Amino acid sequence: MSRPIDTTHDPNLRSWVESANRKDTDFPIQNLPFGVFQLLNSGEPSHIGVAIGDQILDVSLCLETGLLQELPEHLQAACGESNLNRLMAMGGGASLMLRRHLSQLLQWNDRSPTAQQMLVPMSNAKLLLPANISDYTDFYASIFHATNVGKLFRPDNPLLPNYKYIPIAYHGRASSILPSGTAIVRPKGQRKSLEALTPSLEPTQMLDYELEVGFFVGVGNELGEPISIDTAEDHIFGLCLVNDWSARDIQAWEYQPLGPFLAKSFATIISPWVVTLEALAPFRTQAFKRDPGDPLPLPYLSFPVNTEMGGIDIKVEVLLRSVQMQEAGMEPFCLSRGSFKEMYWTIAQMLTHHTSNGCNLRPGDLLASGTVSGAASGSQGCLLEITQRGVNPIELPTGEMRSFLLDGDEVTLRGYCEKQGFTRIGFGECRSAILPASGLSHQL
Amino acid sequence: MSRPIDTTHDPNLRSWVESANRKDTDFPIQNLPFGVFQLLNSGEPSHIGVAIGDQILDVSLCLETGLLQELPEHLQAACGESNLNRLMAMGGGASLMLRRHLSQLLQWNDRSPTAQQMLVPMSNAKLLLPANISDYTDFYASIFHATNVGKLFRPDNPLLPNYKYIPIAYHGRASSILPSGTAIVRPKGQRKSLEALTPSLEPTQMLDYELEVGFFVGVGNELGEPISIDTAEDHIFGLCLVNDWSARDIQAWEYQPLGPFLAKSFATIISPWVVTLEALAPFRTQAFKRDPGDPLPLPYLSFPVNTEMGGIDIKVEVLLRSVQMQEAGMEPFCLSRGSFKEMYWTIAQMLTHHTSNGCNLRPGDLLASGTVSGAASGSQGCLLEITQRGVNPIELPTGEMRSFLLDGDEVTLRGYCEKQGFTRIGFGECRSAILPASGLSHQL
Repeated sequence: MSRPIDTTHDPNLRSWVESANRKDTDFPIQNLPFGVFQLLNSGEPSHIGVAIGDQILDVSLCLETGLLQELPEHLQAACGESNLNRLMAMGGGASLMLRRHLSQLLQWNDRSPTAQQMLVPMSNAKLLLPANISDYTDFYASIFHATNVGKLFRPDNPLLPNYKYIPIAYHGRASSILPSGTAIVRPKGQRKSLEALTPSLEPTQMLDYELEVGFFVGVGNELGEPISIDTAEDHIFGLCLVNDWSARDIQAWEYQPLGPFLAKSFATIISPWVVTLEALAPFRTQAFKRDPGDPLPLPYLSFPVNTEMGGIDIKVEVLLRSVQMQEAGMEPFCLSRGSFKEMYWTIAQMLTHHTSNGCNLRPGDLLASGTVSGAASGSQGCLLEITQRGVNPIELPTGEMRSFLLDGDEVTLRGYCEKQGFTRIGFGECRSAILPASGLSHQL
Repeated sequence: MSRPIDTTHDPNLRSWVESANRKDTDFPIQNLPFGVFQLLNSGEPSHIGVAIGDQILDVSLCLETGLLQELPEHLQAACGESNLNRLMAMGGGASLMLRRHLSQLLQWNDRSPTAQQMLVPMSNAKLLLPANISDYTDFYASIFHATNVGKLFRPDNPLLPNYKYIPIAYHGRASSILPSGTAIVRPKGQRKSLEALTPSLEPTQMLDYELEVGFFVGVGNELGEPISIDTAEDHIFGLCLVNDWSARDIQAWEYQPLGPFLAKSFATIISPWVVTLEALAPFRTQAFKRDPGDPLPLPYLSFPVNTEMGGIDIKVEVLLRSVQMQEAGMEPFCLSRGSFKEMYWTIAQMLTHHTSNGCNLRPGDLLASGTVSGAASGSQGCLLEITQRGVNPIELPTGEMRSFLLDGDEVTLRGYCEKQGFTRIGFGECRSAILPASGLSHQL
């Protein structure tokens, strides 16, 4: 939680990349999220880049042309890699140094013909996974989500006794994490209706999204050496959006006693730009305020700075567009709006708990928050909650009804931070769509 | 399940490596398991090797000296790698071709001074993880284990309704998988006794091993393309032993509703030699015979060859040695003996189920069976079952009692196949020990 003082989010900064100065851009010069891309149809190896307006600053190309030569050699070397893992492993000091340098390059006063040649229009790029993700862990950090889901199964006792003590989580599947823009095939799985005597293997009929926020591990830890809560954020490189696709009927039948497995592992989609904690600094807020009757976190999960500043006010929303809406040229329909600041557990608490048994995290590991649901109506981050397991379908502007998702539906997650006196910081989008069970996954 | 005909397990074969011809060796010329090793205290990069008696045939060195030049170039290249992933990715045809070639090199008639120089005494080597394991999945495939554990929690209804339909599994943590010979630190975690009002973070007091059999994925599958049961074994490179260390008190408090997490992720130990399906061919047996009242597996998990030959009769045992026993120079004490043939689900069924939702497996992924427990008394593969959660402690030959494991205890798993008319095939050992909660993990 002790990051060097940083002025790269100074709202007065302007870039010579015009599109980065627009009020509605996700990627002003104050953001500079890291990602990995490939030129469309080029067959070239992937490059590290930084989003700026509607452009990508090609960091690999900056390296090649000597624009990074003031930086330490090992940092330069990390910039030439095909993913962010090496940069992530170097810690916050290194990435902040790079961030400052790139900010300088992109500032109005520094316009240079050379730097301009390092730009790639985002529309000409395919955005890839930012890192080689070795392990993926999914938490369950919204008490509203946990309570709403619990009510569906245990109306009188929705929240289990461990919830207010443990940042509950499960290991997820790393191989099926895909970048935004990938359509997924409706999975088959064992499902058993209440009336049926036996289960059968069929395409899921209860396909759902889950709106989550993910965070990438920077510096890891050795096995057997837990990370303490006061240094937890030093191990976090940055954040992204996560759509944890879920098949509710498969989940209901399989999840006892070892938790979700095939109901989740068919696909997880992430937004490709990793927004750093430096860019998010102005939007830090206090951790979720527990009810007076709630227990305090155990000492290993307690730290004053975490209580005062552990939250992040990231506004998140989910948009749905059906085939019929696409054909009619209609805008996506907003299903929910909420904020990441309403999570019961902070990112520092999740990371510290994860390592409390000595479990080792590696650079590039992805931890996700679990569904981001808030207290207010309209802030529930999945259809399971919104439609109460399909009992109360929602109506789209076309008059179509949805209990769960249908083939062709396109789901887009968005996230952004806004605050008086600071520049808006966006996450870009996490977009995916559903193909019929017989289809093959492909880029949208 | 359709592998080329193979004579490398012909019991008449003899090797010029004398120790490989001893009746009690785990590694006769009929076995030839693949592994990865490093010369002790050498600092040299890791090499692929094959176990033969008490020696390792250094496959990388064979490559360098031209002993593999008859093999296709891409196969030679895979032999020069620092782990088995590339060889695994090439499929059963390639590894069988290499296996045949190495068998030739090691056969009595082929003794050559050159080949002899490729041997490294196993005592001079540090055995490493055989592959870069991207994802690790742990099943729950013994109905005896599931029933015994279920009884502890639900005496009247031990087995959940999904068990006989679904090979139940959860995603495990890949980063904390370690090779045999690594001591582990007793993990801390949240635990809450029945009497306590609140949980606290403490070293586990219910540390347990789990005896499992693991199998490595060879050729993977694309996302969205399930692997059918009739081709499942074509995707399995080979098997090893797995000790799925478990902290039962942490598990009991954390596992609802998303399954085991920190109770398992502090360490998983595997035996370093990967025994191929070719070496195990003589020991194939029918799949577990279901009770007449049990449902048949769903069609996607049914295949005649799987029913007739899906099982493998691997005899498995667990040995414990306390500090007091070590100091007295006593042999380890046998806690249980069982066979992998008693698993309710076959390895083909586990793999096929895993991909039935389209989940992609990658070369080097590890799938483990879950605790191998049999029907007979004395064949339960963990202390939770043997002592009935500590209620009936066992007595060691020293008179010491054990409900769960104590610091200094050394746990060794062994596995082997024996059958009239065939050469014994062993797995080597999967050995680990417990350090106090304040210690650091290290090589034994």
